[in-house]
Amino acid sequence: MKRWNIVITGFGSVGKQVARLLDKRHAYYKEKYKADVRLVGVARSAGGCFHPDGLSVPQWEDFAAQRQITESSFDGAAFLSDSNADILIEAGPTDIQTGGSGLVYIRQAFVQGMHAITISKGALVVDYAGLSKLAKQNNVMLKISGATAAALPTIDLLQYNLAGCEVRAIEGIFTGTTNYVLTRMMEDGLSHEEAIRDAQKLGIAEPDPSYDIDGWDTACKVTILANAAFGASLQLQDVPKTSVRDVSTDHISFWKQQGKIPKLIGSIRKTDNGIAASVELQAIDTAHPFAHVTGTTKAIRVETDVMGDLLVVGGKSDPVAAAAAALKDLEHIISR
Amino acid sequence: MKRWNIVITGFGSVGKQVARLLDKRHAYYKEKYKADVRLVGVARSAGGCFHPDGLSVPQWEDFAAQRQITESSFDGAAFLSDSNADILIEAGPTDIQTGGSGLVYIRQAFVQGMHAITISKGALVVDYAGLSKLAKQNNVMLKISGATAAALPTIDLLQYNLAGCEVRAIEGIFTGTTNYVLTRMMEDGLSHEEAIRDAQKLGIAEPDPSYDIDGWDTACKVTILANAAFGASLQLQDVPKTSVRDVSTDHISFWKQQGKIPKLIGSIRKTDNGIAASVELQAIDTAHPFAHVTGTTKAIRVETDVMGDLLVVGGKSDPVAAAAAALKDLEHIISR
Repeated sequence: MKRWNIVITGFGSVGKQVARLLDKRHAYYKEKYKADVRLVGVARSAGGCFHPDGLSVPQWEDFAAQRQITESSFDGAAFLSDSNADILIEAGPTDIQTGGSGLVYIRQAFVQGMHAITISKGALVVDYAGLSKLAKQNNVMLKISGATAAALPTIDLLQYNLAGCEVRAIEGIFTGTTNYVLTRMMEDGLSHEEAIRDAQKLGIAEPDPSYDIDGWDTACKVTILANAAFGASLQLQDVPKTSVRDVSTDHISFWKQQGKIPKLIGSIRKTDNGIAASVELQAIDTAHPFAHVTGTTKAIRVETDVMGDLLVVGGKSDPVAAAAAALKDLEHIISR
Repeated sequence: MKRWNIVITGFGSVGKQVARLLDKRHAYYKEKYKADVRLVGVARSAGGCFHPDGLSVPQWEDFAAQRQITESSFDGAAFLSDSNADILIEAGPTDIQTGGSGLVYIRQAFVQGMHAITISKGALVVDYAGLSKLAKQNNVMLKISGATAAALPTIDLLQYNLAGCEVRAIEGIFTGTTNYVLTRMMEDGLSHEEAIRDAQKLGIAEPDPSYDIDGWDTACKVTILANAAFGASLQLQDVPKTSVRDVSTDHISFWKQQGKIPKLIGSIRKTDNGIAASVELQAIDTAHPFAHVTGTTKAIRVETDVMGDLLVVGGKSDPVAAAAAALKDLEHIISR
């Protein structure tokens, strides 16, 4: 039976769900893939916790419950290096400026011959091309389902389900929060401020909602998908975007009169000059496939050359679903 | 560069499209997978055509254009055996009683160490379990996208995109023809006879439409998916089914009054007693995710434990799309 040692970097709500699912699925991996998958280490900025034979659930739960005082001596890179892991699962905060520690960890993982699964987007937004090249050079895999709409299949759909087809264009509702806010504005007449506050109360929007509301989250996913699935060399700042904060109640009244529905839509399209990508607030009509995609639900629509169009709607938007998407990637690695 | 020899059995419209796409994608396979993929043989009941270095397009076109007089001496099994192929693509007619020659060819392919991709459903309906076991014993792959709604991802969705999740239930509009007939009856007030004739004129329904219209096609797909993705041991005759011929214009009027829409829905559900499967004519309401799936469009909805629900709609229903689905399977084989 092949042994697979896992390290998780970033140990917030998603990282902990990954650890929980790894424990739950231990026997299943043994049975299905003859794989002995063990979580040997978890790290956050404050420190790390490691056991070469695998961490027990109480061990990592204790670690997670410790107050987050940074060990001045903690060196995440050294921790990863000493872990002797086979697969890194990066679940830290998304840093779209520098790629943050996620970028450092993933690069190091590749150099040491580990596969990497990333849920955080920063590293991919900042340097997808470099990471992809480094993975290839070291004959390891970079898997990104958790960073590209997680439970809604996007990168899978383009690379696996449509293998061999030419994908001409995609468009998507990639951010549940903005779709929730727009839905409340349309259906209940709320202002964007009210709808955002409501989303915050329900834990749908972050205390600082800017990353989602101003279109950054959608733009990140568009940038990653354009580079990973369309071979583009897109920078995040090249993607024009609209903020949901630009939508007034007057806009809403006008669209209602016109029978239109506002959606924040990320799109990528092949053109004669390369790849065009954007994040736009579009007032779609009721016949559009996204017209019935409401609340926090996400969706993607794909246009192909020979398989026609495909619409995929759904996939939960919570830490367990994000963790499950990362572990789908894990299965694709251990089953090869 | 690795050489992959392909044989196609069954050389009707879909088989010819497979040959055409193989030719078109020859350079792409070389570039992307370092794979030299060559069509070395094609066979139909009337005879075969073979070249060890690969058939040129004019060679197989000439063969396809020949009048179909059966060579009394033609032995498909011997042809396959002598072909020294690496992958069989079975595209013959679907025989749901015996599995037909497709079953014979796929079994033989496995015993000889070939992978098999099947577009025809007969062999899978009659003996999925046996074929799956035989493939495993011989360390080769059985790929079935082309037999399970083709361009609409179904088996992929359950086995790849949702790896690690528990799939609790699926339901689908798996047959474009029946959905077209029901749509015409609802939207244009046609009787089922008129709608079927119209579908025949457009080449959507077969001259003998029974296989689609009476629910056999949907029941075959349900049987295959239940056995392949849910581990069931279902026989085709165990799946209760309804025929679209049972729908009268009175039914249609009644549903219209009630705000309902009739759909032929194949479903599979885990129960306390195992797997329940059926093909039913359901009058769904307008809020159902399938309410907007009209014409020849197909769809599948999946319920999972941790990733929520997913709806997939679309995928073309023509010979090129079916061929492309089979070649998606081919890429998954040669990329491993």
